[in-house]
Amino acid sequence: MKGHGGDIFDAGERLGIPAEELLDFSSNVNSLGPPAQAREILANSLQVVTRYPDIESRKLRRHLSDNLGVPPDRILAGNGSTELIYLLARRFAPRRATTFPPCYLDYWRASELAGAEVTGYVSTDEENFALAESALEMGSETADLVWLCNPNNPSGTLIDRDRIGAAAKTHPDVIFVVDEAFMEFVPDCKERSLIGTPEPNVIVLRSLTKFFALAGLRLGFLCADPEVVRHLASVREPWTVNGLAQAVGEHLYDDQDYISRTRAVVAEEREFLMRELTALGGLHPFPSHANFLLIRLDAPGLTSAGVKRQLLHQRILIRDACNFRGLDSRFFRVAVRVREDNVRLIEALRQALIPAEGQAASGAA
Amino acid sequence: MKGHGGDIFDAGERLGIPAEELLDFSSNVNSLGPPAQAREILANSLQVVTRYPDIESRKLRRHLSDNLGVPPDRILAGNGSTELIYLLARRFAPRRATTFPPCYLDYWRASELAGAEVTGYVSTDEENFALAESALEMGSETADLVWLCNPNNPSGTLIDRDRIGAAAKTHPDVIFVVDEAFMEFVPDCKERSLIGTPEPNVIVLRSLTKFFALAGLRLGFLCADPEVVRHLASVREPWTVNGLAQAVGEHLYDDQDYISRTRAVVAEEREFLMRELTALGGLHPFPSHANFLLIRLDAPGLTSAGVKRQLLHQRILIRDACNFRGLDSRFFRVAVRVREDNVRLIEALRQALIPAEGQAASGAA
Repeated sequence: MKGHGGDIFDAGERLGIPAEELLDFSSNVNSLGPPAQAREILANSLQVVTRYPDIESRKLRRHLSDNLGVPPDRILAGNGSTELIYLLARRFAPRRATTFPPCYLDYWRASELAGAEVTGYVSTDEENFALAESALEMGSETADLVWLCNPNNPSGTLIDRDRIGAAAKTHPDVIFVVDEAFMEFVPDCKERSLIGTPEPNVIVLRSLTKFFALAGLRLGFLCADPEVVRHLASVREPWTVNGLAQAVGEHLYDDQDYISRTRAVVAEEREFLMRELTALGGLHPFPSHANFLLIRLDAPGLTSAGVKRQLLHQRILIRDACNFRGLDSRFFRVAVRVREDNVRLIEALRQALIPAEGQAASGAA
Repeated sequence: MKGHGGDIFDAGERLGIPAEELLDFSSNVNSLGPPAQAREILANSLQVVTRYPDIESRKLRRHLSDNLGVPPDRILAGNGSTELIYLLARRFAPRRATTFPPCYLDYWRASELAGAEVTGYVSTDEENFALAESALEMGSETADLVWLCNPNNPSGTLIDRDRIGAAAKTHPDVIFVVDEAFMEFVPDCKERSLIGTPEPNVIVLRSLTKFFALAGLRLGFLCADPEVVRHLASVREPWTVNGLAQAVGEHLYDDQDYISRTRAVVAEEREFLMRELTALGGLHPFPSHANFLLIRLDAPGLTSAGVKRQLLHQRILIRDACNFRGLDSRFFRVAVRVREDNVRLIEALRQALIPAEGQAASGAA
């Protein structure tokens, strides 16, 4: 399966080096690594991996409930939120689905695999990828299921939750799936999230693998009406969530200091990257509320694929964003990592931009 | 989701004790635990859990290929073989499916969820649950997809692979899915397995979590025609196999001594259990080729649910097999574990059988 970009294994194979040797700016995983509790559980995981996982993820759901203020019967855990995206598409089997590109590719794919006709209402770089009122209204009117991502991947834009709530109220027969995979990175996420919304036609997706740096473990969940949760649980395959993801997941919110430290580092480093990237010239990073930046190349003669290739020689992997609907070969996305990594990225980009300027200058001559 | 039995979390909650304190005879996981390589990887898993898994499980497939003699393009890895069972049912979407109960419940459930009409050709205890020629022939004639389990769970019976091969040849338009989840426990499994069969309508499922004691990690794979593998890979969700399962999976066949030791222990302990259980009186264990025994209670007045309840007081969990189609409240299943555990089981069963004899005697009086 291709199209997900940010594939260190693919890049490693092509370069003939171990994937571990790449500095990965292509995947949006917390570069602080997982919290201490998670590390400890992993180091002592023998019993957990030997026995079957709890099909119902009971302890995990209780932990999430205690920390997020959502009752356990409104929570369904998944093998990453990706499992839940495909499960939702299959079970609601919409005839028409709406997405708002540029956005995560799997909304489109999951909907199409489930037999839906998918329409994309594209946001543009001229508007900083803000979601237009007319797009939200038209997209809600014409579909049975609407996919929203908040904050949005790859643009980092945040949608006011009241706008989504209002649309859901106006269209009670439409399912609104709000993917909050990166919401935990937003400092005032409690006030921004729809996780506690009572609207029965709103389903909120959360990933636990980005913020808590556990992409390899696969863990996500959804919050929805208890009726919806019961139905989904009754029609999906057993044991999708592995035991280690559960065991680690049961302690993810124990360390509140890790959570606030992560948010602070991301905010500070995102600002640092914005400033430094802008200062390089030839790059336009868009304002973001998440732990990544979408960047437009404004240097003539350069493409995102070319820049990606150049950075790979320095063992840095970025996400070529040209295959996102609504974007083109000028766009790429980088994660916000720790300072040392970010400095390496900026230096590498500086190198990558030099020939373009030379070329542009000679072209203008 | 209920019906899978052997749920230590459920049993633990009901007893009000931690699940870890139960001696689990209900799940068929190798009681020697995972091999040393797996333990080491788990203890040093930080990098593996932080990054995304390889969507294509490349290294894992190469490792399986090297050790099982199947080309990598015939292998598709899954989040346990259960993911693959549901994926196969969905993608082949049979109008009619055949199962041979008593068998793993999810063939039936996955087929029904995919819209199939399912027929079960029941094998009986009088025939030691041997698969009748007429059942295989009728089941193949009337279905688009046939589910076989070899050796069969819960009966432990082994089907001659040539019988399956012949049926597949006779019915080239029917898909034969052969679940070999427990095949690795069979000493001459290379000669028994259909893993290398060239028949394009045969798909072989393998679990890596039973033999290698990794039920909590979730890992399985299927072997099929490269065309089938490519199609399945192109329509399923990304990242179903977690990174730790991959990393551990890439070394599962490194230690051949562990593999032969496991087979030897299982053979010896299965024989020990057969002998001791038979000697108890009131129990009829059926001959098995796998790491579990199906047992019929021949003690009047006792039910599998009652025996399960009594054993739980001694913190031993067995699998009440009454909810398998073709079985009834006289049947339960136990894993073959290490000697110390097996001795505890026999003693507990001895206790559980005493009142029944007393009761039967007084009933006869």
